[in-house]
Amino acid sequence: MTASSSASQRARVRMKPKSNARAIRHGFPWVYANELVTDRRTRKLTPGALAVLEDEVQTPMGLVTVNPDSKIIARMLDRDPEAELNLAWFEARLSRALQMREQLFDAPFYRLVHAESDGLPGVVIDRFGSACVLQPNAAWAEAHLDLLTQALINVTGVDVVLKNAAGRTRSLEGLDDVNMVLHGTAPEAPIAVQMNGASYMADLTGGQKTGLFYDQRPNHAFAARLAAPGARVLDVFSHVGGFGLAMLAAGAGSALCVDGSAPALALAEQGAVASGFGDQLSIRQGDAFDTLAALEAEGEMFDVVICDPPAFAPSKPTLEAGLRAYERIAKLAAPLVKPGGYLGLCSCSHAADLSKFRGASARGIGRAGRSAQLIRTGFAGPDHPQLPQLAESGYLKSVFFRLD
Amino acid sequence: MTASSSASQRARVRMKPKSNARAIRHGFPWVYANELVTDRRTRKLTPGALAVLEDEVQTPMGLVTVNPDSKIIARMLDRDPEAELNLAWFEARLSRALQMREQLFDAPFYRLVHAESDGLPGVVIDRFGSACVLQPNAAWAEAHLDLLTQALINVTGVDVVLKNAAGRTRSLEGLDDVNMVLHGTAPEAPIAVQMNGASYMADLTGGQKTGLFYDQRPNHAFAARLAAPGARVLDVFSHVGGFGLAMLAAGAGSALCVDGSAPALALAEQGAVASGFGDQLSIRQGDAFDTLAALEAEGEMFDVVICDPPAFAPSKPTLEAGLRAYERIAKLAAPLVKPGGYLGLCSCSHAADLSKFRGASARGIGRAGRSAQLIRTGFAGPDHPQLPQLAESGYLKSVFFRLD
Repeated sequence: MTASSSASQRARVRMKPKSNARAIRHGFPWVYANELVTDRRTRKLTPGALAVLEDEVQTPMGLVTVNPDSKIIARMLDRDPEAELNLAWFEARLSRALQMREQLFDAPFYRLVHAESDGLPGVVIDRFGSACVLQPNAAWAEAHLDLLTQALINVTGVDVVLKNAAGRTRSLEGLDDVNMVLHGTAPEAPIAVQMNGASYMADLTGGQKTGLFYDQRPNHAFAARLAAPGARVLDVFSHVGGFGLAMLAAGAGSALCVDGSAPALALAEQGAVASGFGDQLSIRQGDAFDTLAALEAEGEMFDVVICDPPAFAPSKPTLEAGLRAYERIAKLAAPLVKPGGYLGLCSCSHAADLSKFRGASARGIGRAGRSAQLIRTGFAGPDHPQLPQLAESGYLKSVFFRLD
Repeated sequence: MTASSSASQRARVRMKPKSNARAIRHGFPWVYANELVTDRRTRKLTPGALAVLEDEVQTPMGLVTVNPDSKIIARMLDRDPEAELNLAWFEARLSRALQMREQLFDAPFYRLVHAESDGLPGVVIDRFGSACVLQPNAAWAEAHLDLLTQALINVTGVDVVLKNAAGRTRSLEGLDDVNMVLHGTAPEAPIAVQMNGASYMADLTGGQKTGLFYDQRPNHAFAARLAAPGARVLDVFSHVGGFGLAMLAAGAGSALCVDGSAPALALAEQGAVASGFGDQLSIRQGDAFDTLAALEAEGEMFDVVICDPPAFAPSKPTLEAGLRAYERIAKLAAPLVKPGGYLGLCSCSHAADLSKFRGASARGIGRAGRSAQLIRTGFAGPDHPQLPQLAESGYLKSVFFRLD
């Protein structure tokens, strides 16, 4: 497979009659396998190959990347079917993404590229000052990795580019899971990231995902508002202390972080020390369900409780079980909230839409015998833009309740 | 009709077999007319009368207020069927509402009571420092107005309580539209309210609704982030300059406010002067659709454009026409946004849910030939809580797009 192909020799793939070419024209970026004429030539394309997408009467609609093995068989790269994926092309996409982040954030710590929404399908780039962590979660991006890395360096001036290959979708694209240093030298220690008044420790090489969850930043900020001076707060599924540290920075008296991962909790502790409130954070390693039940048995109560679990319903087949898990979390967490206190619940499940997730959360609170007001619904921050045509799939939701 | 009735002599109303008593038990606050046994005694109840709600086997479920003329025939007031609506009862409800606002807001300017969600069905109270504007939009509240007013004074210590009778639902409840001073002296001049760094002018006696739209505060704050230093911004359906003043306070170079109401625009100008940027705000009175088209014809472009229209789809029968109006607004506004600029669109329509409103907005932008990223979805602030059981009806939505 060659990393680039000139427009003239490009393969052409055609949408079936009565398939939804109109949606594509209106900005929908994906062609499903059942919408494409999959003749032998199309089936023989290497995953990640470039091709010109045509409608049923062979009018070119744009340049796509094709993966014959995927349900999403083609993804739109450029509305111009003649586009060349050269250094300038990548630089233009990255400059557009950078311009928005530079305007919206005071410091260069953000998600720089959010895949389809930033015109780079399957590509995620998180920026940590002078370092970037790049997830090429699609075959076409892997094939163009050198150009993408060079463009990233040119546009941002970063010294370090790390490749994180832990994305679940990489195996679907036939890609390996080998992390590597693409440029510069991997930092030996976690990087301190300032958000919402606290210092967070991001481990760019050993951590979950790219090292930090930037998407929750506005929800951390809202939780911080809920933490009255001296408040006692609980952060379940805390990872490196996302909610807990923000609430301590806002004046909470103490935060208990619960997580299954000892390395993540160690980073939470380091973050608390770096933020100047090391003695106010405590940790408890263990299963979240068990720990919530144990805390109730111990008679513990908190002014604010936040639960930010991993995706319980990542896909449609897991939806019902996932919703039951969200309900159970809410039911276990509600008794730990003091009367007049707050409960924040999050979901990063694609399959559980806002209405279903909110319903499961409200049911759980009700089954715990508590009544509630919903005071905020929040999503990911603006460095995680969405295509309006794909907005239904917005994965992150947070709902905050005041409990009587 | 007496303002209170002791528990023993209270009327009793009964839900029909197979009606949804379970939803009521789970916190849903309304009984629809087709769910209640409407015998002659029930039909004879005065609108706003108190009654004990029973399930089909005559188990008491709580104290309700009944309006035999309304589709929502009963609204839950208290889960305790023996509850007495005395001064202490109102004080307890108001104290609960106040506690949350005092924690979440730095200054006493907020919606203090948001109807059902704060346990006072149909009652809206906005606070402006030492004055409150009270909307008793249900017959029971009108009947208990003296107690409610006294409790409000006792709990908040305000000097002035004004009654605003402009609410649309009052006529459905058989109530008049006469404003009055319930306590103290009506302020002679608009009150200055500090929000998001700007001074807003709230006319408590002559303005729309209660004088100011507190619900948009977090969306004003987000728009302010979009306004780069020196930016040129447009605020359509500006009322007293909600978005425009917040963006000027954040550093925008100039703001143009468009509204049909000359008094509202005059207040926007006063707010700009009080905020110290009187020379940066200009106004244009007129129809918003016409003005958007005229601005395009004049070749005007802006860094940020916000449209916050009145409810185009307040009820189900108006949904389709309402969505077409939202689409048209988006189509007219998009051409006024510079490439790389931002477009914020709002809806306060109950009938248009988030998905439908977002879809109409995206269609309008597409029809203007622009492509967009959705960077934020926002709702009303936390002083407008929702009952989780009624959350589908959350009225206010805002969607912010970055346009290429």
